[in-house]
Amino acid sequence: MWVYQKKLQHPVRVSKCDPCMAKFLVEQYGGADGELAAALRYLNQRYTVPPKIIGLLNDIGTEELAHLEMIATMVYKLTKDATPDQLKAAGLGEHYANHDKALFYTNASGVPFTVSYIAAKGDPIADLYEDIAAEEKARATYQWLIDMTDDIDLKDSLTFLREREIIHSLRFREAVEILKEDRAQKKVF
Amino acid sequence: MWVYQKKLQHPVRVSKCDPCMAKFLVEQYGGADGELAAALRYLNQRYTVPPKIIGLLNDIGTEELAHLEMIATMVYKLTKDATPDQLKAAGLGEHYANHDKALFYTNASGVPFTVSYIAAKGDPIADLYEDIAAEEKARATYQWLIDMTDDIDLKDSLTFLREREIIHSLRFREAVEILKEDRAQKKVF
Amino acid sequence: MWVYQKKLQHPVRVSKCDPCMAKFLVEQYGGADGELAAALRYLNQRYTVPPKIIGLLNDIGTEELAHLEMIATMVYKLTKDATPDQLKAAGLGEHYANHDKALFYTNASGVPFTVSYIAAKGDPIADLYEDIAAEEKARATYQWLIDMTDDIDLKDSLTFLREREIIHSLRFREAVEILKEDRAQKKVF
Amino acid sequence: MWVYQKKLQHPVRVSKCDPCMAKFLVEQYGGADGELAAALRYLNQRYTVPPKIIGLLNDIGTEELAHLEMIATMVYKLTKDATPDQLKAAGLGEHYANHDKALFYTNASGVPFTVSYIAAKGDPIADLYEDIAAEEKARATYQWLIDMTDDIDLKDSLTFLREREIIHSLRFREAVEILKEDRAQKKVF
Amino acid sequence: MWVYQKKLQHPVRVSKCDPCMAKFLVEQYGGADGELAAALRYLNQRYTVPPKIIGLLNDIGTEELAHLEMIATMVYKLTKDATPDQLKAAGLGEHYANHDKALFYTNASGVPFTVSYIAAKGDPIADLYEDIAAEEKARATYQWLIDMTDDIDLKDSLTFLREREIIHSLRFREAVEILKEDRAQKKVF
Amino acid sequence: MWVYQKKLQHPVRVSKCDPCMAKFLVEQYGGADGELAAALRYLNQRYTVPPKIIGLLNDIGTEELAHLEMIATMVYKLTKDATPDQLKAAGLGEHYANHDKALFYTNASGVPFTVSYIAAKGDPIADLYEDIAAEEKARATYQWLIDMTDDIDLKDSLTFLREREIIHSLRFREAVEILKEDRAQKKVF
Repeated sequence: MWVYQKKLQHPVRVSKCDPCMAKFLVEQYGGADGELAAALRYLNQRYTVPPKIIGLLNDIGTEELAHLEMIATMVYKLTKDATPDQLKAAGLGEHYANHDKALFYTNASGVPFTVSYIAAKGDPIADLYEDIAAEEKARATYQWLIDMTDDIDLKDSLTFLREREIIHSLRFREAVEILKEDRAQKKVF
Repeated sequence: MWVYQKKLQHPVRVSKCDPCMAKFLVEQYGGADGELAAALRYLNQRYTVPPKIIGLLNDIGTEELAHLEMIATMVYKLTKDATPDQLKAAGLGEHYANHDKALFYTNASGVPFTVSYIAAKGDPIADLYEDIAAEEKARATYQWLIDMTDDIDLKDSLTFLREREIIHSLRFREAVEILKEDRAQKKVF
Repeated sequence: MWVYQKKLQHPVRVSKCDPCMAKFLVEQYGGADGELAAALRYLNQRYTVPPKIIGLLNDIGTEELAHLEMIATMVYKLTKDATPDQLKAAGLGEHYANHDKALFYTNASGVPFTVSYIAAKGDPIADLYEDIAAEEKARATYQWLIDMTDDIDLKDSLTFLREREIIHSLRFREAVEILKEDRAQKKVF
Repeated sequence: MWVYQKKLQHPVRVSKCDPCMAKFLVEQYGGADGELAAALRYLNQRYTVPPKIIGLLNDIGTEELAHLEMIATMVYKLTKDATPDQLKAAGLGEHYANHDKALFYTNASGVPFTVSYIAAKGDPIADLYEDIAAEEKARATYQWLIDMTDDIDLKDSLTFLREREIIHSLRFREAVEILKEDRAQKKVF
Repeated sequence: MWVYQKKLQHPVRVSKCDPCMAKFLVEQYGGADGELAAALRYLNQRYTVPPKIIGLLNDIGTEELAHLEMIATMVYKLTKDATPDQLKAAGLGEHYANHDKALFYTNASGVPFTVSYIAAKGDPIADLYEDIAAEEKARATYQWLIDMTDDIDLKDSLTFLREREIIHSLRFREAVEILKEDRAQKKVF
Repeated sequence: MWVYQKKLQHPVRVSKCDPCMAKFLVEQYGGADGELAAALRYLNQRYTVPPKIIGLLNDIGTEELAHLEMIATMVYKLTKDATPDQLKAAGLGEHYANHDKALFYTNASGVPFTVSYIAAKGDPIADLYEDIAAEEKARATYQWLIDMTDDIDLKDSLTFLREREIIHSLRFREAVEILKEDRAQKKVF
């Protein structure tokens, strides 16, 4: 189980109201390679991976929940002071018609989140490559988002998150090598 | 952010290997009215509801994550000792072909989870009725699941979860009445 | 069965060609809380609810079909005189590429309608809270749509529809109380 | 708008409780070529087809709503006396976990209905071929369903519905020829 | 099996960088009536149609793969020189956030491709009407796309593809008549 | 463009009619990690990867089309002699109601194929890890399928396909190392 702590993993600031950027940022909230996809992927795999990597999946999965909350906070801050007309001008009129300013788990195009984005194969090597790919794809998305904003504060938060994905990718690559070695050893003895 | 505690909210035991029951139970893992849907619904609404009900959504949303973990543990325990032939006989051959024994967020029929099951309207009364309906629907699902098993230990866990849904429903109904009163007061003064 | 009458439940007028507003209005045609979702939800529940509320579901379900037709008429009137260039400027170029000026059951973002938006639980209390929530969510959507237009004629039609949702919500709340009383009585005698 | 008449287009009888057949029959309730798909397809196209075929679409669309109700009645009658154990044995345990005995708009495999099954192109020839194909596909489905039951009463209802699809297909083929002739005439004069 | 030949079926040229047109053109890449849908529909039906029309489905299915490649080339050429700002201005910021300039199989609104767009009924007449409808719908889409561009080179490629759809439609209509005749003959002898 | 050659990449034989195994095998036809997903993933990425890996994606993508055809042939052979009753007994009654014996692109549970299973990021390292993960996941699925059959001939074909996935995975891993080296070199000079 999880205990909620009333703080963000890393502080989130935005320099200005920018609903257009909020629209793009939603990609990391409910998109194919976003933080929700990441958290659900790792926490679900915990039950059937070799015991020595359960902790890794649990740690990173829990951290992704914290990232999801950071993204939500950014989206909220970028839109909270916008008028309906500003939302319309930013391409968020479609969102407003359904949700007013409430957040929702879609990608930037408005496609609802589905777990068809993620996988669990019961084969630890396949599952870990799925996880490495997930981190590399999330890293790429953060790069495309950083490219689209000139808000220094927002860039800082997005850069932090991109760096975390790089570290997660490295840890999953280490894990896959450990499992391969274990497997090789088993064949020898 | 959340901190993981290595225990379940309520102990989970099952009396026997029963992959057929596991198949039905998955409805509460990745189904329309399951625990994933519940957790995501409440945690997402936190940003745009009146401040006095943020805590309620946060508490219940976090508890639903713990329930999700309980369901995962039940499904895992009901299937971990099954052979492929037993899985096939239980109607899980389709699942095995894709996932081996790994869990996955589908409903009992194998339909992948989608956030199209949930809503966020930015209108606090509408959002709270959405939440009451969610709890009532989850209560019903737990009842249908209890009807389909004679495993005393599993019934105990499912009954615990059904009771929690009833309590959540009551708390959301209180919240909706408080908001209505606030609204009425505003009109008077 | 139903017999078609060649008139609308309430007259529909629009003051001007406004494809941008048509795009948003489609939310109530094929969106999560739109009239199609409402009609299908209530007509489907008729078979397994207690006999005393079948008529209510039948009446409101049939009325929602009439509302669906009103929305279709509004969308058609708002777009029928638009040129392809006007449609593109209004963010309907994507729609035009697929449908020309034909209507289609999507939400405002272009996501196709799915019955994953609705529920039927076989538990009358759960089903009725689902229905109350549906009406409250539709009421909210009509409010967001009214906020986005200054077309007096269109506002009139949308206000009529919003009022109907409020009345439906009240009738479903009465029904849920009647069922609760019936249930309480059964326990006593 | 539509007025409800408390009778079915054609009487529906079933000879026995048969939840397995109910499961297959659901294909015509919420499946790709089912009655819901048909009704929504034709009623939606009414707004942008040439005036002389609006009535045809309106009539057939309204009739398909009546067919949808006939299918619902059959499914209900085939399952209403089944115990949970009989539902499980018939492969409806997955359905029961979510819906108890309530109906739902899925195909026979449990996949939720989506309007991605239907089309509206704004081109009357394309729309009418879409409609002819729809009727031919529904005819085929009724044949496969008739092949799977030996219930004389049910066969009677399914045969009635199959015949209606054949008649609709003919009427749509006549319409497409009329439009082609009109088009040819326009080119001449 | 297929052998790749390093050339396009028909040369593809575009006169200018035009990401907005690329966005609309994607409708024929991953949309309901696009080339991917067409290729998958025909190649899948090959296994259960009467032997005399297998070759027709194989030929047209293989040609649609070539058309898919032509569309991909057009989309690539229309966007390859665009800056992120130009992509944003063209309504492709949402796409960029996820994919940078990579292509993806969505419709023009960004909805991911699904095989729910296509059908296979095991009834040859129904399958062929499905195919005729598909070609007529694709023809319509090409017309709407031609209407939206003034790029002479692009119009040339789109006109070529529209003409191919008309020819395919004719060939499927011939096939359906041949099968009907065969069927009539069988009844006689 | 592609030229069709009337032969399979590798001969496909099955020892007996086995519709139950056909049902599971469909996972590799239209499932998340199946051959359709693989072919579409690689062929789509060709346009935006570094020139030196276009050929690799083209070759493997084209080969996956041949694998898709092999799977289709297996499914067809496993079911072609089955009666409707045998299909029902094998859990294919739901499929029969919609498709008779025609094939369709679903996973083993009947969920229609969607491109939400695949990704294209425009970042070559991310795209290649996506591809490695895809091959590892397909390898796992082939293993689970081999586990579920005792048909020697079918096992032979599935083993061939599993081996191909292993080779593809190695080639994608080589490619990712080459790109990393290129990148490292660029930074040095």
